[in-house]
Amino acid sequence: MDQKRSLQRLAAARVARLATVDSSGLPHIVPLVFAVADGKVYSAVDHKPKRSANLKRLANIAANPRVALLVDQYDDDWSQLWWVRIDGSACVIETGTAWEQAVEMLAHKYPQYRGQPPTGVVIEITIEGISGWAATP
Amino acid sequence: MDQKRSLQRLAAARVARLATVDSSGLPHIVPLVFAVADGKVYSAVDHKPKRSANLKRLANIAANPRVALLVDQYDDDWSQLWWVRIDGSACVIETGTAWEQAVEMLAHKYPQYRGQPPTGVVIEITIEGISGWAATP
Repeated sequence: MDQKRSLQRLAAARVARLATVDSSGLPHIVPLVFAVADGKVYSAVDHKPKRSANLKRLANIAANPRVALLVDQYDDDWSQLWWVRIDGSACVIETGTAWEQAVEMLAHKYPQYRGQPPTGVVIEITIEGISGWAATP
Repeated sequence: MDQKRSLQRLAAARVARLATVDSSGLPHIVPLVFAVADGKVYSAVDHKPKRSANLKRLANIAANPRVALLVDQYDDDWSQLWWVRIDGSACVIETGTAWEQAVEMLAHKYPQYRGQPPTGVVIEITIEGISGWAATP
């Protein structure tokens, strides 16, 4: 799949899975909702401040900013399978205009956020590589 | 979600995402089909022998056997969200009875494999930890 098509499929997907790694080389993986803009992927931590501070994904990013993000389609008709993977570098945005813009993008993509926007930190992933595959080219 | 329910949801899921880590701490993530039996997860590499030997997931497992595996349900009704994550240790089975049994299990779960069973190596993940979460308990 070419890069343009991969980026389109990434941006349109409703859910992604984020892999992070801790300082001992142990991988961690979580599903998340996200938005894409200007070569970056944004995701937010929901409104659980005390728990958020201890979230494994955040501790891992602090220890090792290299992350991988996957969106894919599964179908029992295997000719419909495809996936797009991002390799990137993550950082955490806690406050300010960048945080506000990310939350706005997320609420634009997900009406579910509009009544109850996230109040936790934002994870910003700079896309450094993108690869895609589709069973039916 | 309790462990029994988490294991049920894991076993019933059609697709999982596997996170592995290379020797430099870089994460990798792929979707895969899989079967669960006796505290282990099995997945096979399809019939592309030359390419398989260089698959990033296999190189990563050789360098670092610690893996994480995720199954999850996304729905725009966020009360329906859930996920189950496995922490485990992976190894590669290339031939023999264990390989044959794993391929048989996969073909049992996925009719798609019956006409064209996988001929590549099998990844065996020993489940060392399981955690689950559901928006609606």
